[in-house]
Amino acid sequence: MSKKTIGIFIGSLRRDSFNRKIANFVISLAPSDFEFKIIELGDLPVYNQDYDDDGTPPPAYNKFREQVKEVDGFLFVTPEYNRSVPAVLKNALDVGSRPYGQSVWDGKPGGIISVSPGHLAAFGANHHLRQSMVFLNVLMLQQPEAYIGDVADILDEKGNVVPERSIKFLQQYITAFVKWVNLISEKK
Amino acid sequence: MSKKTIGIFIGSLRRDSFNRKIANFVISLAPSDFEFKIIELGDLPVYNQDYDDDGTPPPAYNKFREQVKEVDGFLFVTPEYNRSVPAVLKNALDVGSRPYGQSVWDGKPGGIISVSPGHLAAFGANHHLRQSMVFLNVLMLQQPEAYIGDVADILDEKGNVVPERSIKFLQQYITAFVKWVNLISEKK
Amino acid sequence: MSKKTIGIFIGSLRRDSFNRKIANFVISLAPSDFEFKIIELGDLPVYNQDYDDDGTPPPAYNKFREQVKEVDGFLFVTPEYNRSVPAVLKNALDVGSRPYGQSVWDGKPGGIISVSPGHLAAFGANHHLRQSMVFLNVLMLQQPEAYIGDVADILDEKGNVVPERSIKFLQQYITAFVKWVNLISEKK
Amino acid sequence: MSKKTIGIFIGSLRRDSFNRKIANFVISLAPSDFEFKIIELGDLPVYNQDYDDDGTPPPAYNKFREQVKEVDGFLFVTPEYNRSVPAVLKNALDVGSRPYGQSVWDGKPGGIISVSPGHLAAFGANHHLRQSMVFLNVLMLQQPEAYIGDVADILDEKGNVVPERSIKFLQQYITAFVKWVNLISEKK
Repeated sequence: MSKKTIGIFIGSLRRDSFNRKIANFVISLAPSDFEFKIIELGDLPVYNQDYDDDGTPPPAYNKFREQVKEVDGFLFVTPEYNRSVPAVLKNALDVGSRPYGQSVWDGKPGGIISVSPGHLAAFGANHHLRQSMVFLNVLMLQQPEAYIGDVADILDEKGNVVPERSIKFLQQYITAFVKWVNLISEKK
Repeated sequence: MSKKTIGIFIGSLRRDSFNRKIANFVISLAPSDFEFKIIELGDLPVYNQDYDDDGTPPPAYNKFREQVKEVDGFLFVTPEYNRSVPAVLKNALDVGSRPYGQSVWDGKPGGIISVSPGHLAAFGANHHLRQSMVFLNVLMLQQPEAYIGDVADILDEKGNVVPERSIKFLQQYITAFVKWVNLISEKK
Repeated sequence: MSKKTIGIFIGSLRRDSFNRKIANFVISLAPSDFEFKIIELGDLPVYNQDYDDDGTPPPAYNKFREQVKEVDGFLFVTPEYNRSVPAVLKNALDVGSRPYGQSVWDGKPGGIISVSPGHLAAFGANHHLRQSMVFLNVLMLQQPEAYIGDVADILDEKGNVVPERSIKFLQQYITAFVKWVNLISEKK
Repeated sequence: MSKKTIGIFIGSLRRDSFNRKIANFVISLAPSDFEFKIIELGDLPVYNQDYDDDGTPPPAYNKFREQVKEVDGFLFVTPEYNRSVPAVLKNALDVGSRPYGQSVWDGKPGGIISVSPGHLAAFGANHHLRQSMVFLNVLMLQQPEAYIGDVADILDEKGNVVPERSIKFLQQYITAFVKWVNLISEKK
């Protein structure tokens, strides 16, 4: 039986991004019948519908849309910028949702881990992204919610998650997430 | 006495954008002591904090930040993409909010007109943007709210707003908006 | 094989409530293997945690919690009050979520139809309710979204939905909803 | 010159409410030209428009509406129930907003302090309430935002706020709030 593949989308382009470290740690937790892989967002020009209307989408759009089509589910790992989803991640949602009627997000399962150096744990990004997921028909895991606050305190220099409690939470999250992906995928 | 200047930010890059047409119509409604001008968003690369951390922001960032600093208030005219703020507009918010401690949005008055070809009138974009404004300390006009739905039905071929009722509403909106800008500006 | 039962929750207590009319119409669309029934909210005192802490919940709380436990899924039919969920419906969510650890909402499928006499179709209530559903672990149907705007125009004097297009949409909505309920229920 | 009066609205009815303790502490911080007083919400029956349509509002509605009319600004101190505004507080907003055209909230300044025993500090309640304030035309202080998380850790047995840092923050918040109230009140 073939592995399921999950695309991970990171809402920060910063080279030392806390979110990328959490994403990488999550990848290491993937069960044997799942592959988690990062789909990069940094090359996508800001969405302009003219590209699609003119039939001249940037090559990066085509590549991204193909990558999203190929995966079986989505995991968003994101900080909050200005109490909402960072532009880089919102742009990926917008690019993947178009051209009209050809969204690559439709009908697949998804999850979100919001990550922040502060206590509030990017709550605003977490729930604004969920509102977009309603429209995009991404079937979101509800519980457990994953809010990783004070992230700098749980990572060591190599980007590993250190506290046992944090590791355990992320393991439980991934267990619930893959169970959700299996439920949605098998029944469709 | 010098004019006050309002920067208009358009949440769509499409060349035939309904939002740009509404923005242009709104410009024609500016009272004599106000100048409304569009601040373009299309050249801003997607925000990456490394640019600022490295001290090498793209020239378009510098230009944009200077333009925002110079105006006395902000008017956002935006569609909804996937039940939220379009990436192009969220990117402008993110770029203007940084580097840390140097946000160009802070403390100024703002308003939003959401525009859509559908009935729901981009409600989702309207209120997600307002959540960002809390953090950015943009002091938002609350009433009247401006939801322009079914926008294709109120524009003629030249992009003019036709129905008397729509024109009147936009005039009332601008009257309330400039009154709000004056209140906030004079007291600070 | 036994029927599945769906509890309908109406976000308005008004005796001529548009929402109740839509709810009743929806009941008439239930497929033969489903029963839809209204769970009344009008007798629930405003939630006060002391009731539960003291071990003296109002009888209406007990009755409501039992009714919610017995159904296989939830359908919320609600107007918007002040850009959010009406207090009557939020109260039902709060009462059902407690005492701590004994939520009666957990893990079941749900859907929402928002209803309004205006164009905006209670969008604000629709999405604020969805945010609560994340925490309550109600697994929400994402698409189709159901926004019933200008509701007075689609009802006749007896409270029937008249336009063929509206009837068809509600039929499609219910078809998608029961399919979703079956998916979630069977796999758990 | 007469004092300005601020009505405080508490989003929890629990007798040992953390929010009431924070509210009481905030009252002690009022500057000499301001009076802060709690407006109680516990007696308000859940809003039903029939009361107003029939011309028979509960006496508690009348009393509440009068109390709200008499104050010069609003301060909401609230926990989060199920990622949104508690029913008790949403009910107060709904009761005060009606009958149609007679809202007692309109045009006055407001602020919100969200309070929680957890890290997330009732972010969801904070911003859902702000969305209602747009419609109700309550002119909200944007910055500083006030998120009081881990509230049990900052209160002593008598309900006093203990950490110097927390006291200082609340003082700064109240200073900004009364300045905002003065700005909005004087110019109208």
